[in-house]
Amino acid sequence: MVIVMKENASEEEVQAVLANVERSGARAHRSNGDRVTVIGTTGALAPEGNVSPLHQQAGVERVLSIDKPYTLASSQIRNGERTVLEIAGRKVGGEHFVLIAGPCTVESQEQTLTTARVVAQVGGTMFRGGAYKPRTSPYAFQGLGREGLRLLAQAKAQTGLPIVTEVMDVRDLEAVLDVADVLQIGARNMQNYPLLAEVGRTRCAVLLKRGLSSTLEELLMAAEYILSEGNPNVMLCERGIRTFETSYRFTLDLMAVPVLKELSHLPVIVDPSHAAGRHELVQPLSLAAAAAGADGVIVEVHPDPSRAVCDGPQALPTDRFAAYASAVRSAAELAGKSFSTV
Amino acid sequence: MVIVMKENASEEEVQAVLANVERSGARAHRSNGDRVTVIGTTGALAPEGNVSPLHQQAGVERVLSIDKPYTLASSQIRNGERTVLEIAGRKVGGEHFVLIAGPCTVESQEQTLTTARVVAQVGGTMFRGGAYKPRTSPYAFQGLGREGLRLLAQAKAQTGLPIVTEVMDVRDLEAVLDVADVLQIGARNMQNYPLLAEVGRTRCAVLLKRGLSSTLEELLMAAEYILSEGNPNVMLCERGIRTFETSYRFTLDLMAVPVLKELSHLPVIVDPSHAAGRHELVQPLSLAAAAAGADGVIVEVHPDPSRAVCDGPQALPTDRFAAYASAVRSAAELAGKSFSTV
Amino acid sequence: MVIVMKENASEEEVQAVLANVERSGARAHRSNGDRVTVIGTTGALAPEGNVSPLHQQAGVERVLSIDKPYTLASSQIRNGERTVLEIAGRKVGGEHFVLIAGPCTVESQEQTLTTARVVAQVGGTMFRGGAYKPRTSPYAFQGLGREGLRLLAQAKAQTGLPIVTEVMDVRDLEAVLDVADVLQIGARNMQNYPLLAEVGRTRCAVLLKRGLSSTLEELLMAAEYILSEGNPNVMLCERGIRTFETSYRFTLDLMAVPVLKELSHLPVIVDPSHAAGRHELVQPLSLAAAAAGADGVIVEVHPDPSRAVCDGPQALPTDRFAAYASAVRSAAELAGKSFSTV
Amino acid sequence: MVIVMKENASEEEVQAVLANVERSGARAHRSNGDRVTVIGTTGALAPEGNVSPLHQQAGVERVLSIDKPYTLASSQIRNGERTVLEIAGRKVGGEHFVLIAGPCTVESQEQTLTTARVVAQVGGTMFRGGAYKPRTSPYAFQGLGREGLRLLAQAKAQTGLPIVTEVMDVRDLEAVLDVADVLQIGARNMQNYPLLAEVGRTRCAVLLKRGLSSTLEELLMAAEYILSEGNPNVMLCERGIRTFETSYRFTLDLMAVPVLKELSHLPVIVDPSHAAGRHELVQPLSLAAAAAGADGVIVEVHPDPSRAVCDGPQALPTDRFAAYASAVRSAAELAGKSFSTV
Repeated sequence: MVIVMKENASEEEVQAVLANVERSGARAHRSNGDRVTVIGTTGALAPEGNVSPLHQQAGVERVLSIDKPYTLASSQIRNGERTVLEIAGRKVGGEHFVLIAGPCTVESQEQTLTTARVVAQVGGTMFRGGAYKPRTSPYAFQGLGREGLRLLAQAKAQTGLPIVTEVMDVRDLEAVLDVADVLQIGARNMQNYPLLAEVGRTRCAVLLKRGLSSTLEELLMAAEYILSEGNPNVMLCERGIRTFETSYRFTLDLMAVPVLKELSHLPVIVDPSHAAGRHELVQPLSLAAAAAGADGVIVEVHPDPSRAVCDGPQALPTDRFAAYASAVRSAAELAGKSFSTV
Repeated sequence: MVIVMKENASEEEVQAVLANVERSGARAHRSNGDRVTVIGTTGALAPEGNVSPLHQQAGVERVLSIDKPYTLASSQIRNGERTVLEIAGRKVGGEHFVLIAGPCTVESQEQTLTTARVVAQVGGTMFRGGAYKPRTSPYAFQGLGREGLRLLAQAKAQTGLPIVTEVMDVRDLEAVLDVADVLQIGARNMQNYPLLAEVGRTRCAVLLKRGLSSTLEELLMAAEYILSEGNPNVMLCERGIRTFETSYRFTLDLMAVPVLKELSHLPVIVDPSHAAGRHELVQPLSLAAAAAGADGVIVEVHPDPSRAVCDGPQALPTDRFAAYASAVRSAAELAGKSFSTV
Repeated sequence: MVIVMKENASEEEVQAVLANVERSGARAHRSNGDRVTVIGTTGALAPEGNVSPLHQQAGVERVLSIDKPYTLASSQIRNGERTVLEIAGRKVGGEHFVLIAGPCTVESQEQTLTTARVVAQVGGTMFRGGAYKPRTSPYAFQGLGREGLRLLAQAKAQTGLPIVTEVMDVRDLEAVLDVADVLQIGARNMQNYPLLAEVGRTRCAVLLKRGLSSTLEELLMAAEYILSEGNPNVMLCERGIRTFETSYRFTLDLMAVPVLKELSHLPVIVDPSHAAGRHELVQPLSLAAAAAGADGVIVEVHPDPSRAVCDGPQALPTDRFAAYASAVRSAAELAGKSFSTV
Repeated sequence: MVIVMKENASEEEVQAVLANVERSGARAHRSNGDRVTVIGTTGALAPEGNVSPLHQQAGVERVLSIDKPYTLASSQIRNGERTVLEIAGRKVGGEHFVLIAGPCTVESQEQTLTTARVVAQVGGTMFRGGAYKPRTSPYAFQGLGREGLRLLAQAKAQTGLPIVTEVMDVRDLEAVLDVADVLQIGARNMQNYPLLAEVGRTRCAVLLKRGLSSTLEELLMAAEYILSEGNPNVMLCERGIRTFETSYRFTLDLMAVPVLKELSHLPVIVDPSHAAGRHELVQPLSLAAAAAGADGVIVEVHPDPSRAVCDGPQALPTDRFAAYASAVRSAAELAGKSFSTV
C-alpha cells in the first residue's frame, strides 16, 4: 500500500501516519521527494477497525493499493518519478548515465591500477573488479579474496573512482563493505535470500544482476527483498538470459530496459560483456543499450585480454577504451542522458 | 566452395570455370563485384580426378572451402564485403538504412492509402501491409487476399513506395508477385522448404523472418534455400524469439544483429513491433536496433490503432510517426548509416 | 459452442439443429457417440434474435459455450470421453496403444521391406517412412519422392501395415494420399496453415507434430485448423521442444502427455527418437511416455543404422526391436492400455 | 585423473599412491569398491618430472584422464558401476528405489506427525518437510525455522523415517544437521558455491536440485563442489526447467534421467510436484520417472491440501497416497528396481 502525503503536509502529520502504520503490524518505508512525501507499507496491515483509516488522517492526499507482488520496487510507489541514486558523488538514474568498467577479476597490483587509471582518464564513472568470483568449476581460480579487496582500495585511493565488487557469502560482507561503494549480487545469487536480506540491512548501494532464467517480476521481487529491509539504493542489471540460441553465451534481453523502467523506478544497468562472451560484440550492444534508455553499462576492460585469468575474450583492451567510451556517450545523449561525473 | 577470380580475369576464363563446375555435378553461382568475380559452388563436386583442378585454371586467384553448412549466405563468399540490394531504386545494406512501415493488415482503401501517404511523407523507404495473414486461429480474420493485393497496388501507384507483403502459399505466389517488390516469408514459414524454393526461383527480393525458435544458423540455412535456387536478393529479419520471459510476447534478440553481420553478407532488418506487442516499446527498440547496426526496421503503423482488425496495440499511430522516424534517423546516423531514398 | 442432444433425440431433431446452426452463418460439426450426438459450432453465430434459440429446440439437452480458443479439439466438446480413431482396422486412443515404427527415410526396396517385416513380426501397429523429407540444408538428401511412395505401397502390400508418411507440399498431397493411411505434418509445418487446411479437407488420419517452440495451445489451434475443415481424424504428437539444454537435440516434454489429455479428446502420440538423437535413450523415453499415459509411440528403426542415409544414430537396430517392443508393451499395460491389433 | 588400483593391491600400495598424489599438489579422493580401489585426483598435478609417474607405481592397474570438466561426479571414475548410498539404513541407487514424501512446509505438530505416519504406513522411504523456505516474496511465510526442525525430529522419533530438509544459509547448517539425514539444496541455491562447499565439508547426504535453467553439466559441476570437499554422498534431483511453455509451472525434463545416469554414477531423483504445480499430474509423471530409470521420487503430500500454507494445489492428499505408492512401485519394478526398505 502507498500513502501519498499532501504537498503541504507537516512533519507531525507524516510522523502520525508512520506511527499508525507501524501500530497496525505493518512496516512503513518513507520516501522523500522534492515536493511530496510518500510512505510505502509492507507486511500485513491489521484488519480494518483496528487502525484509524489512513485516508482520513490529516495530511494524507490519497492511499493507493498496489496490484503487483512488489511494492517498494514498483513505479507506482513513486508516481512515475525515477529514482536517482548518489554514490560517492556520482548520480545514477534519471538523466545520469554511468559507465562502469574494470577487469573481470582483480589479478595483480599492476593490472588493477593500470586499468583503473584508464577508466578514470576516459571519463568512466566507477571501477569494477572481482575479488570473490563465483566459478562453475571448483577447480577454477576463485579470486584473490582479501588481497583483491586491498588492491581495489588502492585503485580507489589513486583514482577516486567508486568501487563495484561482488559479495557471494554473508560471512564476507563486512570485509567487502570496507572497500565497496556498490555491492554486486551476481546472477547466480539473485535468489539467495539470506544474502539479499543482509545487504538490505546495510545502506550500501547494490547492483542486482538478473538471474539467468529469472523473469522481470522475479528480479523485482529480489530487489524487494533488499528494499524491504530498509536499503533503498538498488540498481537492476540485465546481463543476458538462457535461451535455445547457441551462437552466444547468453541472449542479452534489451527489451528488459524499457519494460523495467515502466514497472519500476529503480535505475537499469546493462552488462553486455557476459552475454556476448566476445569483445567484438560489446560496443554494438552497449550502443543499443544506451539508445534503448539504459541508465548505464558495466563492461570488462583489461590491459592485455590475452593474458587475463578469467573471461579474457570478452574484455575490451584498454587501448580501445577511449573510442568505446566516446561512442557510448553519443548513444546516451541520443536517449537524453549525459555521463555522470563528480 | 568459393572460387575467387583474378581482377583481370577475362569473361572466357570465367565461363570456363563455370562450365567446369557444372560438369562436375555441382551448381555454380556467379557473383559480380566491382572489381572481382566470385563463383560459389553448391552440391557435391565430383571426386578429385574427374574435374581438372579448379585452382589451376586460368584466371583463378584462389579456391576457398567454407567451414559453415551454408555457403552462399556466408560472409566468406564475399570476402567481408556487404551485399547492397537495390529494390525499386532504394538501396538496402552497407550504409543504407531502410524504414519499412505500414499496417499489419490491409483493411480498407482509406486505411491503406492514408497510412501509405504518411509513410511516404516522413521519408519511409517502403510500405508494408498484409493481404494473406497467418493466424493462430482458423476462426480469425485471414486477410483480404486478392482484394488486399489490389489495395497495395493502389498505394504503390499513389506514393511510389515499394511494397512488402507476405506470401504463405505457393499457389498464391504468382498473384503476389504482381504487386510485391519484396516477398515476406513469415516466421512460421521460415522452414517451409517448398515455399522457400519457389521464391528462390523468382528474382524478387525476399524478407526472410527468423522462426520463433530458430537459431541463427537455421535462419542462414533457410536463406541458403532461396539463394541456392538462384535468387540473391535476400534480407534477414530478426523479429523476436521464444523464451521463458512472459512480460512480452517475444524476446527481441538484438545480439542477432552484429552476429548475423559477422556470419553473413546479407542485410539484417529488425521487426520490433511483433516482439513487443505494444507500441510504447517500439521506439526504444527501434533506436536500439539502429544503434546496434541493423540495416533497417520494419514497423506497424495505423491511422487508428484502437480500430485495427489485427494487432492494434503494437501499431504506432500515424500522427506520431514523423517524430518516430526522426529519432530512428539519428540512431542510424550514430551507426554510420543514412536513410535510403530514391 | 457445443450442442449436446438428448439420448433419445431423433434424426429429424438433429437435422433441424444442424440447419438452424448453418442458417445463422456458423458451421456445424456433427459427432456421433455411442449414445449421444454432439454438435460443435465454429464461426460466428448470428446475433441473438436471428436464430431461434438453440437450447429451446426439440431434442436439445443443453448448450455449452467453450472457454478455450479451440472448440473442436477441446475435451469439453466430448464431455470428457476420449476419441478412438480407427485406421485401416487399428484403433488409436482410449485403451488402445499404437507402436508406429520404421526408418526415418525410405532408402531402398530392401531396406524398406526388411524393416517393415520386422515391424509387423513384433506386433508393431503401423509402418512409418519418409518419402519427402524436410531438411535444414538445401544440399542434403531430400527423400526419394514418388519412388519412395511406391516402396511404401509395396511394404503395405506385403505386411498389411498401415502407412504413416509426411506431406510437406500441398502440391504433393494427392500423390501421398494414394499410399498414406496417416498423413504426417512435421514440426516445421505445424503452423503452415494452407497445408493444414488442405489435409483438413481430406478424411485421411493426420499425425500432427508439435512445433519446436509451440505451446500446447498453439498445437491445439493447429489441430483446430484441420478439424474445422471437417476432418476429425487427428492425432497429436509430442516430439521434443527447444530449450537451453545442449545435452540432447530437443527436450522431450512428457508433461505434455497428461496435460494434452486433460485439454483435448484427441489421441496423444510421443516421438522419442527425434528428441533424443541417440538410440540409447529411445527405450527409457518410450517406457516413460507409455507410463505417463501416451496413446502410442512413433520410433525409428533401421536394419543397419550405421549406413542410414539420415538420422542413423537415433534408429533402433531391427535386431533389438522385439525386446524393445516387449518392454513398451509392459509399460503400456501399466497405464491400462493394450497394443492395438487388427 | 583417475587411478584404478589392481584387484590385489595392498593397503601400502594404495597409501603410497595417495601420498604421491598429495605431494604433487593435487588432492586425492579414495573410493573403495567391492573389489577394486579407485583414486580420483582433483586440482593441478605438478608438471611431469616432479612426481614419479603414477602408472609405474606398484599396485596401479591404469591411469585414466577424464575428458569432462567434472571428475568425481563422472561415470568414468567408477568405471560404469553405480553409487549406492546408505542413509540411516536405506539404500539409494543401483536397484534401490526411494519414495521420499511429506509436506512442502512443516506447519504444525499435527500436520507433520499425521503426514509422517501415512508416509511410513504405505512404505515411503524418507520424510521430507521444509523448515526454512526460499520464497520469491519477502512478504511470504518463510518457514517455522528452529521450531520446524523440532517437529521434524519428532516425526523421525515416531516413525523412524530419515529426514530430508532444506538448508539455505550457511549459518543454519549446524542446527539443520542436528535433525537432517539428507540436506536438500534447493534449485535457487544450486550455484551458491559457499553453501555447496560447506555441505561438502560434512558427511551428511545431500539432495542437490537442478537449477531452473542449469544444464546437466552445470548440475554435475555443482555436485563436484560438494564431492571435491570430501563428501561423497550426493543425490542429483531433476525438478523441472524453465521453458517457453506456459501450461505448467516448469517443464519436467525426464531425458535428464537416462542422460545423467550415463554421465554420472550418482543416484538420480525426480521431483514431479514442483514442476507440475498440480497434484493431478504428479502420478503420471512419477510413473514416467520410474519407468525412465530414476532412482527415486520426492513428492509433496498433505492431510488437507486445501489448507496448506504453501503449494497446496500440488500436494497429494494423504488419503490417496497408498494408491499412488502402489502404482509407483509397479513402475519401478518395470525398470528393474525395488522399493528401498530398512
